[in-house]
Amino acid sequence: MKALWLQEGELTLRKDVRTPVPAEDEALIRIRLAGICGTDLMLARGYYSFMGVAGHEFVGEVVEASARPELAGRRVVGEINCVCGSCIYCREGSVSHCRERTVAGVKSRQGCFAEYMTLPVANLHQVPDGVSDEEAVFVEPLAAALRIQEQLRIRPSNRILIVGSGRLGQLVARTLTLTGCEVEAVSRYPQQAELLSAVGVHPVSQSEVKTGWADVVVEASGTPSGLTLAQSAVRPGGSIVLKSTCPDEWRVNMSSLVVDEVRLIGSRCGPFPPALRLLAAKRVDPRPLIQERHSLEAGKKAFSRALRPGALKVLFEMA
Amino acid sequence: MKALWLQEGELTLRKDVRTPVPAEDEALIRIRLAGICGTDLMLARGYYSFMGVAGHEFVGEVVEASARPELAGRRVVGEINCVCGSCIYCREGSVSHCRERTVAGVKSRQGCFAEYMTLPVANLHQVPDGVSDEEAVFVEPLAAALRIQEQLRIRPSNRILIVGSGRLGQLVARTLTLTGCEVEAVSRYPQQAELLSAVGVHPVSQSEVKTGWADVVVEASGTPSGLTLAQSAVRPGGSIVLKSTCPDEWRVNMSSLVVDEVRLIGSRCGPFPPALRLLAAKRVDPRPLIQERHSLEAGKKAFSRALRPGALKVLFEMA
Repeated sequence: MKALWLQEGELTLRKDVRTPVPAEDEALIRIRLAGICGTDLMLARGYYSFMGVAGHEFVGEVVEASARPELAGRRVVGEINCVCGSCIYCREGSVSHCRERTVAGVKSRQGCFAEYMTLPVANLHQVPDGVSDEEAVFVEPLAAALRIQEQLRIRPSNRILIVGSGRLGQLVARTLTLTGCEVEAVSRYPQQAELLSAVGVHPVSQSEVKTGWADVVVEASGTPSGLTLAQSAVRPGGSIVLKSTCPDEWRVNMSSLVVDEVRLIGSRCGPFPPALRLLAAKRVDPRPLIQERHSLEAGKKAFSRALRPGALKVLFEMA
Repeated sequence: MKALWLQEGELTLRKDVRTPVPAEDEALIRIRLAGICGTDLMLARGYYSFMGVAGHEFVGEVVEASARPELAGRRVVGEINCVCGSCIYCREGSVSHCRERTVAGVKSRQGCFAEYMTLPVANLHQVPDGVSDEEAVFVEPLAAALRIQEQLRIRPSNRILIVGSGRLGQLVARTLTLTGCEVEAVSRYPQQAELLSAVGVHPVSQSEVKTGWADVVVEASGTPSGLTLAQSAVRPGGSIVLKSTCPDEWRVNMSSLVVDEVRLIGSRCGPFPPALRLLAAKRVDPRPLIQERHSLEAGKKAFSRALRPGALKVLFEMA
């Protein structure tokens, strides 16, 4: 089958990748749409070591699933952490921290920038008929956005600042505005600002950020300057959620953390069912975030488009 | 009166400091014992700008207090944040974050390394008869240790690692061991290790720290390498409490924070009443932490003794 292959930070289209054979507890999935995320871009720059088929955001159709044959022909999305089910983290329900985990397209497991992939049937969620492929392909990052509310109590009277209005920041803006909070987001591009305004989030420039204004700041820019801005924007006793995976060491002002008793909270993968419910109920519409679509053959071009400043969601269309 | 005066990071004994005159809502306090803390040492190195009488850990005797005349002659300890009572932080009960605050011996207010000081009567707590001066002088840092349990739910089955077994780490060890948790503390000096063992805390060397072992790590070393060790020791989903004020920027591994969803929690001043209750009930005995006592005249020597590696509590005795 065709697939986008990552090796030592080099992305290539391969036409000779063996179509995966599902294990007993797995399904074979034909990919319909897949999305490029910031982590993919970092992998393609060699920041983390990963060899294999890239990609972890997708919607697909089950070809076969011997453990749950009724899934055949169904549209599904899939959780990307494949877990052991028996370590301390699995037993306590923190499965995304499983000690033995593989992660599709990220760690020791083939991803979704391909014609087919396999995942454990336990990882799959059926997509309701009323949710289009263009919406369903956002379930994984939308779930990651919802992880914030899993980790932190957000009060309707909170003031929230999102630093970064790209792919992830836009989804975070859409879920946080549902809480009734006053939400502002730092945006550098007119298109980003328009998308924010359309969902009731106030776009601000970096210089408009008010010192100590925010109860919660979501750092979604993945840059050290984003964290510096977040530290200046957060109020004493407030929280900064770190939403962007970043392989580097950053310089952090420790005095402000301690004296102002700020919490820095790392945040990664989130729950799929609420993401699907919000899409099904049309409470979040991610489709305006789709910037362009490419075939797998245009993989390198698609990645370079996704890397441009201000880029939004770039999709791969397999059909 | 005599006082230890800080100016541009230079500590001097002055004999001509005017004895403070209490405002209407304040008490005049004659200092009996005062303790040197890590923040004092940083101020004396010029890390923060402060000019005036140093010191913020004390036990004293009220000379006069027109707003509460019944306090006269009583032994007291005092909270060091002097607050406006009307800003948003004061109104919500987060008084230590008051926007208008002055902080005795730290920020825009005279401290306790002197014969006398003044504080608002609202800041004072009477010391029960059964609590000696040598115990009461530890109330402020003991309260700071208890701040951890105010910020974080500590479960009796948690594993806790304390990085740093100096002045503050020893107090944190003493309060956390009361929770029933398994508590280990990184200690570099035999005397520190003995003090830990005596209260049921297991001393470990840096090389004995187990990766991912701790649910909660308390960073009380105030060093970047301490935070690196804390990041390696904390389990995914765990918390690192930053207990040491540190004026620098530190290099922090952001990837491990995000991927492992770790929380970094800044922690500063804590509640006095529980600290006094623990001392009165003899559940915490800080007296073995007293290393030596000096007069104000020996101020420079006392500071240099407190600066030595492995130093514990150095006190000033005024009488």
